[in-house]
Amino acid sequence: MNVTLKVVPVVDIGIKLRAITIGKGRKFEEICRIMIVILKENPNQAQLENLESWLKSQGVQIHRSQGQSQTILGLVGDTSRVDIDLISALDIVEEVKRVQDPYKAANRKFHPQDTVIQVGDVKIGGGNFALIAGPCSIESEEQICFVAKAVKAAGANLLRGGAFKPRTSPYSFQGLREAGLRMLLQAKKETGLPVVTEVMDISQLPFFDEVDVIQLGARNMQNFELLKELGHCGKPILLKRGLSSTYQELLMSAEYIMAGGNEQVILCERGIRTFETYTRNTLDLTAIPVLHRLSHLPVIVDPSHASGKSWLVPPMALSAVATGADGLIVEVHHDPEHAWCDGPQSITPAVFAEMTPKISQMRELMGFAKETK
Amino acid sequence: MNVTLKVVPVVDIGIKLRAITIGKGRKFEEICRIMIVILKENPNQAQLENLESWLKSQGVQIHRSQGQSQTILGLVGDTSRVDIDLISALDIVEEVKRVQDPYKAANRKFHPQDTVIQVGDVKIGGGNFALIAGPCSIESEEQICFVAKAVKAAGANLLRGGAFKPRTSPYSFQGLREAGLRMLLQAKKETGLPVVTEVMDISQLPFFDEVDVIQLGARNMQNFELLKELGHCGKPILLKRGLSSTYQELLMSAEYIMAGGNEQVILCERGIRTFETYTRNTLDLTAIPVLHRLSHLPVIVDPSHASGKSWLVPPMALSAVATGADGLIVEVHHDPEHAWCDGPQSITPAVFAEMTPKISQMRELMGFAKETK
Amino acid sequence: MNVTLKVVPVVDIGIKLRAITIGKGRKFEEICRIMIVILKENPNQAQLENLESWLKSQGVQIHRSQGQSQTILGLVGDTSRVDIDLISALDIVEEVKRVQDPYKAANRKFHPQDTVIQVGDVKIGGGNFALIAGPCSIESEEQICFVAKAVKAAGANLLRGGAFKPRTSPYSFQGLREAGLRMLLQAKKETGLPVVTEVMDISQLPFFDEVDVIQLGARNMQNFELLKELGHCGKPILLKRGLSSTYQELLMSAEYIMAGGNEQVILCERGIRTFETYTRNTLDLTAIPVLHRLSHLPVIVDPSHASGKSWLVPPMALSAVATGADGLIVEVHHDPEHAWCDGPQSITPAVFAEMTPKISQMRELMGFAKETK
Amino acid sequence: MNVTLKVVPVVDIGIKLRAITIGKGRKFEEICRIMIVILKENPNQAQLENLESWLKSQGVQIHRSQGQSQTILGLVGDTSRVDIDLISALDIVEEVKRVQDPYKAANRKFHPQDTVIQVGDVKIGGGNFALIAGPCSIESEEQICFVAKAVKAAGANLLRGGAFKPRTSPYSFQGLREAGLRMLLQAKKETGLPVVTEVMDISQLPFFDEVDVIQLGARNMQNFELLKELGHCGKPILLKRGLSSTYQELLMSAEYIMAGGNEQVILCERGIRTFETYTRNTLDLTAIPVLHRLSHLPVIVDPSHASGKSWLVPPMALSAVATGADGLIVEVHHDPEHAWCDGPQSITPAVFAEMTPKISQMRELMGFAKETK
Repeated sequence: MNVTLKVVPVVDIGIKLRAITIGKGRKFEEICRIMIVILKENPNQAQLENLESWLKSQGVQIHRSQGQSQTILGLVGDTSRVDIDLISALDIVEEVKRVQDPYKAANRKFHPQDTVIQVGDVKIGGGNFALIAGPCSIESEEQICFVAKAVKAAGANLLRGGAFKPRTSPYSFQGLREAGLRMLLQAKKETGLPVVTEVMDISQLPFFDEVDVIQLGARNMQNFELLKELGHCGKPILLKRGLSSTYQELLMSAEYIMAGGNEQVILCERGIRTFETYTRNTLDLTAIPVLHRLSHLPVIVDPSHASGKSWLVPPMALSAVATGADGLIVEVHHDPEHAWCDGPQSITPAVFAEMTPKISQMRELMGFAKETK
Repeated sequence: MNVTLKVVPVVDIGIKLRAITIGKGRKFEEICRIMIVILKENPNQAQLENLESWLKSQGVQIHRSQGQSQTILGLVGDTSRVDIDLISALDIVEEVKRVQDPYKAANRKFHPQDTVIQVGDVKIGGGNFALIAGPCSIESEEQICFVAKAVKAAGANLLRGGAFKPRTSPYSFQGLREAGLRMLLQAKKETGLPVVTEVMDISQLPFFDEVDVIQLGARNMQNFELLKELGHCGKPILLKRGLSSTYQELLMSAEYIMAGGNEQVILCERGIRTFETYTRNTLDLTAIPVLHRLSHLPVIVDPSHASGKSWLVPPMALSAVATGADGLIVEVHHDPEHAWCDGPQSITPAVFAEMTPKISQMRELMGFAKETK
Repeated sequence: MNVTLKVVPVVDIGIKLRAITIGKGRKFEEICRIMIVILKENPNQAQLENLESWLKSQGVQIHRSQGQSQTILGLVGDTSRVDIDLISALDIVEEVKRVQDPYKAANRKFHPQDTVIQVGDVKIGGGNFALIAGPCSIESEEQICFVAKAVKAAGANLLRGGAFKPRTSPYSFQGLREAGLRMLLQAKKETGLPVVTEVMDISQLPFFDEVDVIQLGARNMQNFELLKELGHCGKPILLKRGLSSTYQELLMSAEYIMAGGNEQVILCERGIRTFETYTRNTLDLTAIPVLHRLSHLPVIVDPSHASGKSWLVPPMALSAVATGADGLIVEVHHDPEHAWCDGPQSITPAVFAEMTPKISQMRELMGFAKETK
Repeated sequence: MNVTLKVVPVVDIGIKLRAITIGKGRKFEEICRIMIVILKENPNQAQLENLESWLKSQGVQIHRSQGQSQTILGLVGDTSRVDIDLISALDIVEEVKRVQDPYKAANRKFHPQDTVIQVGDVKIGGGNFALIAGPCSIESEEQICFVAKAVKAAGANLLRGGAFKPRTSPYSFQGLREAGLRMLLQAKKETGLPVVTEVMDISQLPFFDEVDVIQLGARNMQNFELLKELGHCGKPILLKRGLSSTYQELLMSAEYIMAGGNEQVILCERGIRTFETYTRNTLDLTAIPVLHRLSHLPVIVDPSHASGKSWLVPPMALSAVATGADGLIVEVHHDPEHAWCDGPQSITPAVFAEMTPKISQMRELMGFAKETK
């Protein structure tokens, strides 16, 4: 075990670790504390001693369980600085398991109270509900303003609309871009609704000054440079789960943003990719109670992208509310047949207006206040 | 069917469609030609006539198959400008199927000959083999130069090394970044090996001037803004398949780069995410013959990330060659136990040197020239 | 196209096709009617004529769409006897697509009204709710009778309990088998609750005479011989979705049972296998509205196997009800810590009793009658 | 912790554990030895003592690692009788991890030498190669005898052919059943080739007396009652991996057969289900070196079902050989266009005859004997 190992250049990682806020008087080292190292049979004793003395120099206590020929080390203390990859690669090591979670800022253990995110007059999380609606793509000022008024009248408290559009094909419509953002801000002005829209690249961020919530799409969930940048932007981030991302990976991406100092992250379940092709994706509603247990961040659901079919949006939206979602993000288009993008999964303002009172009733049944503000 | 539909703002998509090169005298319109529209039962006749006249105005011929109550439209002609989403969303439409592929520049139908990519003196594709090797992360000038010399001696013809590192955790080592690139270029100078390294964000591109091949990682395969930018960079791109991406999505990402004018794309299979947890990912070698059939681009394989275990690298590398891969990209580290990143999947220079003659023998058996240059 | 092809030995398939009941006066041939055959470019004309005359001899009308070099055949009529595999394999054929569904008996198009299944005094489907509860394994007469009384008191209207247990390991407890069934029937006698229990093999069926509902487990969903046998057993079948089965495959397995003459099939969503390992499986609640749309059969949900964690059972059970499930099947154990099987996902009678009034409230909100009987 | 727990009725599991053969003088208890129990914070001391005394009564040694508030128990000894589910469900337990594998008979640790299976004059495993070929379905005596002679002439050493056919649809051809088996045995008589054919249900086994190798299909991999029965049949079993099964689950199914006393199990990789729809399944060739490392059983590959496309069969077959497969099972049909089943994935005898010399060359390169018999 080489001494140079200790100088892993943490200072070079490009982000500053912010001080960890510890809830309810629990100390950090009480939690980040256990790692188990399973050694191969009959390990070389000199190498084992090297490993143990290196671990001790990291301030970690070691408990050795010695079987007839197999040995386990239980590491207790602040193991957050011990790189699991480094230990795993050692000749004498069979397997390493971390018992605690690899994320801290997003971890409910350190921050037991629900995070409540304030967007204009709207609160999200901690019993406050975000009803975000609007078209997939902004197509014209008339269109976005028309839909904005319609969804506001039906009870939406935030407006969504895509200006920069991630599309699988380079030949598909890519969004109205800067011009689209201006139209969205006009709709904000006319309705007073805070706006949510997607960023696809760091270079677009200067255009997002007046945007209220910045969305990061599923395909960019592990665009780590963009995540770091969003850690410094001072705005709430709506972070969509990747198509094949685990709960832990989603929380690690939230951690990237939070590690930069921005604690306003809204997690969004939007369906994962499975072998089933009837729906566009498979909505994983179990994500809601699980993410609520693991993290203090609000969790919202996108039933439009999850199913890809407009007739599935109302039942799955209601189901998401019943499962405890802190909000919904729904694609609403005044004329889905003529939408420039994602028409098949958009619902009309009329269907949306039929859905919103049911959402309120459901929230009331689930024990939340009837009014969302 | 609204007339405004016709003005889908293709001019706004941010990239210019380059002229399509048609191989063997076949015209584009001979190929992009068939789309099938299955109507709902007893469609509204006025709407159906609207649809048909709009389609005709797009220059598309219509063949109607009329059953007792069901109708199918067969569209023949250049349907590439007909947006499948638009048609799908119509009230009277049950389903739309495109018969031809949605990619053109990457499509073997238009470009029957294998694309051969030239990097310095090295050729990739069309029977020419790329043996790319080097450490996951560049750790120091000594390290990268040492490994570079070792892999060159063993037969590698390109050098890999990560300077900007995508890591799941913000607390993991993120690469030596610009400093790392300088070390890599020093290794290039000392060995003469062209170098391959990963870009994570548009803002890093200015540092890549002397880099020979730019790698785009699996998590960025659908970072569409970066893809567009790489379409203008004039350098070969090594494009890794995303963790849950289909063959078609990989080819569409190649199409993004090619639509910008850069035809030098190398496809890379590196394992997909499945339910199996024994290996890091599941290597999909069937991708090689399938991608070769669908596209003229070279296809290489990364056995290191696919398996995540160094002992699986040599057998899976050999297997990839037997399946017709145009190259390999392999993680080699002088001291995997102390690697700062991905140690468990790195092989040593000695193991690499043992593997390379077997690769040559395998290529000879498979009918390619013994020498790779 | 060889004439002998016509004599595919349908008579040998071991099951008799029962007469299809057509709802609302629609005829079968109105629905099973469209298949699309996409030919390769410039097909051999003799072969094409052979194919067309063979198809006509099958009583199928042909509509030909002729492009410059590509041809599509639209087949209209009763295409259910046309084997898609046969056509696909022809030299001149590029691809074949069936437009209608491959299942008939389970198809809502033929049977628009919800199927209601009667089990003793209990009805399932069509607005009637099945609340099935009980232990994973029957461990003793005392245990099953104790749990049966507890779940009945809390509102369950059917009792579950495993006698034949499918276990991944041959060294795990495999169920009390015949002795267990006797204990289950004693609990039925003492409480009056109809009972649901799993069969694993045809040879066990003689023991199921007094069992009310026979369960077919996820791993046996495509045990086709057992499915055929259950088509003749005259009892309701609870058919669990396989770990990686599509909606269509689940419905095809129901079709196997129904094709034998047994129309009493209850579909059960119990989670699918994905890359996520936090939960045992990923519960797919979108299955409820989709299966309701495609089929007239009742759809129930198993939140216990889906999540594998007892604390997730109440929220996901409630969510299933909100999504329109016709019932729930829940593992309840008097002492989960000491359960012989699946303890971590079992809830206690106390937790179950807390959950049932919420289920009733949810059903009331969703517009069903408060009382389930 | 209740004393009654100790009487888990192992005697009732319906199979007898055979004596474990220990290779190279290692004792069983040396290997099945380590389990880790991670306790919740500040566990109830009385419960902890109960747990520890119960574990000791099971003959297990306990090593306790005590942190500030967290405790880990390392269990050393024969933990094979300790039910992981039981411990996991305890109030005071956070998580339990077994360090050793849950399978014994199939485990290479206990049986370091490759198992070689003898079928007539043919050996499989340990450097001996099985080339199994034949039609998907037996259609007539003429057909199976014709194909048998053709594949024998081309180098096949076993004949496959389906008599009982698992089909997704009850309306598809289900095989010629007993009559088909008679035709297969006639082909065996005429060619001398040992035969491999699939069983779907215990009740069919009496017809398999003269069959040489019994195949268990992917959909029946976890038909546990059938697995147990095959443990007593005294014939080699070709066990196909399930569509969404892990390596460990495949080995556990082999363990079911072996625990009954039948050690002649051939593992077969045939593709797993993923999100990719271009191929029927995704062939996982990494399974070969992994299964060889974990187990001493032979591993063969089915490239026909894996890809579902005949043009992919030769390259993927060759690739499987390069990866170290102990055999191939390939669908060959004299006239794939007219095959009653799986025509699109069948190759002709001519294509097969072209492929076999390449297989021999590949095996020679890989260091095995040129002749397979």
